[in-house]
Amino acid sequence: MNFSITILGSGAALPTKNRMPTAQYVNCNNRHFLIDCAEGTQLQLRKYKINFQKLSHVFISHLHGDHYFGLAGLLSTMNLLGREKELTIFGPPELETILKPMLFYGGARLAFNLKFKSLNRIVKEMIYEDDIVKVFSFPLVHKIPTSGFLIEEKPKPLKINPSMIEAYNLKIEHFKDLQNGKDIILDSGEVCSFEKVTLKPKKLLSYAYCSDTKKSETVAKAIYGATHLYHEATFLIKDQKRANSTAHSTTKDAADVAIQANINKLIVGHISSRYKTNDDHEHEMLHFFANSIVAKDGLCIDLTKE
Amino acid sequence: MNFSITILGSGAALPTKNRMPTAQYVNCNNRHFLIDCAEGTQLQLRKYKINFQKLSHVFISHLHGDHYFGLAGLLSTMNLLGREKELTIFGPPELETILKPMLFYGGARLAFNLKFKSLNRIVKEMIYEDDIVKVFSFPLVHKIPTSGFLIEEKPKPLKINPSMIEAYNLKIEHFKDLQNGKDIILDSGEVCSFEKVTLKPKKLLSYAYCSDTKKSETVAKAIYGATHLYHEATFLIKDQKRANSTAHSTTKDAADVAIQANINKLIVGHISSRYKTNDDHEHEMLHFFANSIVAKDGLCIDLTKE
Repeated sequence: MNFSITILGSGAALPTKNRMPTAQYVNCNNRHFLIDCAEGTQLQLRKYKINFQKLSHVFISHLHGDHYFGLAGLLSTMNLLGREKELTIFGPPELETILKPMLFYGGARLAFNLKFKSLNRIVKEMIYEDDIVKVFSFPLVHKIPTSGFLIEEKPKPLKINPSMIEAYNLKIEHFKDLQNGKDIILDSGEVCSFEKVTLKPKKLLSYAYCSDTKKSETVAKAIYGATHLYHEATFLIKDQKRANSTAHSTTKDAADVAIQANINKLIVGHISSRYKTNDDHEHEMLHFFANSIVAKDGLCIDLTKE
Repeated sequence: MNFSITILGSGAALPTKNRMPTAQYVNCNNRHFLIDCAEGTQLQLRKYKINFQKLSHVFISHLHGDHYFGLAGLLSTMNLLGREKELTIFGPPELETILKPMLFYGGARLAFNLKFKSLNRIVKEMIYEDDIVKVFSFPLVHKIPTSGFLIEEKPKPLKINPSMIEAYNLKIEHFKDLQNGKDIILDSGEVCSFEKVTLKPKKLLSYAYCSDTKKSETVAKAIYGATHLYHEATFLIKDQKRANSTAHSTTKDAADVAIQANINKLIVGHISSRYKTNDDHEHEMLHFFANSIVAKDGLCIDLTKE
């Protein structure tokens, strides 16, 4: 099983030669997701050798250009390269209104099925589920309606402890209930707790994405207990006022949300182009939330190893 | 006086790490123009140290994404960086319909005046004129309505040959007519030809842009006599069939148009990503039109020195 994210763009609105604006590739147990798609994302995907034809779902947080201006280009390139596989885009309801004329006036009919699904910007909602993963959207707090995303591994069937099979005289017909976490009644009439005879499962991993947003307790509640959080920290502490006036976060804001939400590991990104290196962000994060990392373009984080 | 073009993207529809898709910066006597604006153009402008806030006019040839998907991002960045100067965009009439919602839903009102002007896709038309330059658009022949552009230096007032002032007893009141190419009548009653007493003017430079298009005699007529031509040569001769079916040109097509239009220097570009280097294009161009150059990203051509 695998669960990794690749930061395709760690910068805020202004692209520079060191930082592209926001996009992330998420591989959760071979489900291939793209979160946001700034201008230049198709080239970043190529640069980091990610096969974008495998993507099945794209999640667009909001309609500031640095989060989606690369989407029309990516769709065109997918089409030119012969894509046939369906693609689903989750985003603000206006996104379809914006993209359809770009595709229509370009004159090329897409050879693949493109589905648009509108995000609910008021409440947390499950937007995708299959046998091994669930994805939720939830409202963030920004200048325009914006959604965060939470990608969760679903519980897998428990594994029977082989040494317990003989000890309890377990039969095949018992296995399904035990694997699903149900106690059973043995032939002897005795209750056998599933916990006694199954191996302790690994902790389920989950990844929360919060960009762009200011610090919010509601956001912290929506992602409570996620193992990993990407939270924007556009600004350093000294620029807190600027963060407030632009509905963005500082390093401390991001750390506060991570603490409130009981996060294990925090990644901060969406770094303003005014900061030339990660040094000051790293210095502040060490102070506010030690188990953290400051994003840079190309950073790949394997959640199973953190 | 100066007249130069910088190729910001020499590639066709698929961006690669070696070639970005189409955009060009034209500096004609300190008039600052952008022709086409593919995804990534704002970064190319930065890379080649072109101050994009100086741009006054953008000319968009057609609505294939590899010619304009970078425009919304460039406008947003201009705005974020405090632009106040008006910008005029010439393009297909649908361009405004496409761009306005992108700017509107992003929530930021532009702090500068943005004008859209629709191109006539049926006939050649002068679309811009000031005291030193004229710009024309004219129809190309492609899969969707597409315009080419022709940027011409206007004649400057002739210079009086100083040695002739005394010889012909020229007076200040004669100068204006002579500088404007009109003969005068001297005090003696004799006609004085302006050609006798003025210096021979330098040849006026002009730059024609033809991408995307298939070979066309009508196009050659529209640009007849231009000194410099950028013509797409997406394909090599061996791929002539593919060029025909996609309404693009080969090296030979581009050369044929240059010959028909009596062009001095030809630049070919919009090179398909199937060709990894310029070598084969250069080899073919040497054969078909010796005074030519194959575009690459970052190429700057000073028309006054060619």
